[in-house]
Amino acid sequence: MTIGKRLEEVIRLIGPLDQEAMQAAQAHSDRLTKPPGSLGQLERLAAQLAGIGGAFPIAVRKKAIVVMAGDHGVCKEGVSAFPQEVTPQMVLNFLNGGAAVNVLGRHAGAEIVCVDIGVNSDIAHPELLVRKVRYGTGNIARGPAMSREEAVAAIEVGIAVVDELIAQGFALFATGEMGIGNTTPSAAMLQVLGGVASEQAVGRGTGLDNAGVSRKRTVINLAIAVNAPDAGDPLDVLSKLGGLEIAGLVGVVLGAAANRCPVVIDGFIASIAALIAYRLAPQSRDYMIASHLSDERGHGAVLEQLGLEPMITLGMRLGEGTGAAIGMTIIDAAVKLMQEMATFESAGVSKG
Amino acid sequence: MTIGKRLEEVIRLIGPLDQEAMQAAQAHSDRLTKPPGSLGQLERLAAQLAGIGGAFPIAVRKKAIVVMAGDHGVCKEGVSAFPQEVTPQMVLNFLNGGAAVNVLGRHAGAEIVCVDIGVNSDIAHPELLVRKVRYGTGNIARGPAMSREEAVAAIEVGIAVVDELIAQGFALFATGEMGIGNTTPSAAMLQVLGGVASEQAVGRGTGLDNAGVSRKRTVINLAIAVNAPDAGDPLDVLSKLGGLEIAGLVGVVLGAAANRCPVVIDGFIASIAALIAYRLAPQSRDYMIASHLSDERGHGAVLEQLGLEPMITLGMRLGEGTGAAIGMTIIDAAVKLMQEMATFESAGVSKG
Repeated sequence: MTIGKRLEEVIRLIGPLDQEAMQAAQAHSDRLTKPPGSLGQLERLAAQLAGIGGAFPIAVRKKAIVVMAGDHGVCKEGVSAFPQEVTPQMVLNFLNGGAAVNVLGRHAGAEIVCVDIGVNSDIAHPELLVRKVRYGTGNIARGPAMSREEAVAAIEVGIAVVDELIAQGFALFATGEMGIGNTTPSAAMLQVLGGVASEQAVGRGTGLDNAGVSRKRTVINLAIAVNAPDAGDPLDVLSKLGGLEIAGLVGVVLGAAANRCPVVIDGFIASIAALIAYRLAPQSRDYMIASHLSDERGHGAVLEQLGLEPMITLGMRLGEGTGAAIGMTIIDAAVKLMQEMATFESAGVSKG
Repeated sequence: MTIGKRLEEVIRLIGPLDQEAMQAAQAHSDRLTKPPGSLGQLERLAAQLAGIGGAFPIAVRKKAIVVMAGDHGVCKEGVSAFPQEVTPQMVLNFLNGGAAVNVLGRHAGAEIVCVDIGVNSDIAHPELLVRKVRYGTGNIARGPAMSREEAVAAIEVGIAVVDELIAQGFALFATGEMGIGNTTPSAAMLQVLGGVASEQAVGRGTGLDNAGVSRKRTVINLAIAVNAPDAGDPLDVLSKLGGLEIAGLVGVVLGAAANRCPVVIDGFIASIAALIAYRLAPQSRDYMIASHLSDERGHGAVLEQLGLEPMITLGMRLGEGTGAAIGMTIIDAAVKLMQEMATFESAGVSKG
């Protein structure tokens, strides 16, 4: 299958976790003043971070939430409760610090990095990274979202953004997105890539009523029929049914993994991007950390496909990277536990 | 039924949430740049905090994690994987800042307040609050844990500690505990108060093997048979089967609620204390915020009895207030979202 040169290189770079560092983390964890294993996922997180970085002890990492924004031609079919103009409006909101992800990013000590990878209009702001691959996708109910070359280009944008951020010292990434209508391509890809039935894959998005969900299901089934994507070729599925911001996030996940950095997966849309990354490079999964279980139908099914366990269940469903931002605070907590807890020996506590 | 004077007064003081403040919070939430309801439990948390404080806007509160420590006579029956001497050793670890709850408390910006309410030895440390009601409980497999008067006294210790902390400006409380053996009285009380079967109530605690769990089940059933507690009288159940630190936490929950302060509930043992508080004063439930779902068997059943939804699922099972500490960071996040997010109007974002 055709694949970009840089993308191919990045996939090749993604290696296994460092087992020795993971064992050192677990051994340290077992010396800490607590029953063995009683910190649950926090201990496994610490070991994963050690395995990713290839070293123990581990340190708190400089955090960036990459918010990719793109528009969706399928909005013409009336699949969203919000009008398409909200995509650029929300991008400006991100840049001005007023969105939920900005608040939660500040709370987590994470920088918000906003990328216009495919918004259907021009946005001017000094802090916006303009990496537009095209002005929105095509209407998937009528034809492909984009060409295969555009999908690869969008993935490579995500990789390049991560490379830039790593040069600036960032070392822990989260995947965020904005794109009115983007639960529609995500659900379509879940149906094809995961073999998940429409009833389990398609949800209310930003707030469709029952009639709206029913219409969305019809549009998605039509899009699959019209485009006939090859379920065994993730780039085919992504280009025919996907979104530019979703492709960008595939690149963020792969770029982080290739650079041996952990990447925190947000909700439904970001998880679909993670699933595509996983299908392109199965080893990339070891670099992923699932944050929350979203209230959007279909998210649980994607996490199951990925074999990832969420840490937070707050019934959130707004994307942007909001769940991932909260997840980042928990990752920092796991690191601090390893750094700061006393050992049985140092504290003079008897073992069981 | 006999009940302490101060306890009776506190129960009388616990009033309903302020509906007007809750509506103001929800109305504000609906103006913020996100689909209505899409922040899920974070929006409900914000409304609850407004209802508790009786005002909107809400602010980040000064946080204290109250860690009550006590010993358990039932340890003689071999119900724990750790020896009883670990209780005072861990209390010193808390006071020296080396335990998991210290790390997570610092991460959350919360003070750890350690109370010796019933450790079976004397601990000397300038920062320890010594409020010992007695030196450990009786062995519940042979007789009552304590007298009814001692149970009331221990609850009133919790109330008094909260009163002291409120005078120091603390306004958000969490319930933590230390007491080797204390999943045994907790499971016993869950069986009696919740009508929950032994198989669902009794877990591994700090790490029992299957034979240990089986012995623990037998001891618990014996304790219930020997003491014949009245399931309709929570103070009878608490005094016959409970623990001093558990009784203290009942007081922390009730004291917080009487002072219109939210109280974050930690894991299995803290949730049992919350259940007793709820049975004594049903309205106190409105002041509780469940933090995590612990890996200790029985915790889910207690939360069900309380009708509370956990926010975090990390498979933790070490108590101390560790899950509640992480919960506190999420509560702060909910407050900051209300304080800092832009509205549709202020950000110029179109509505759905």
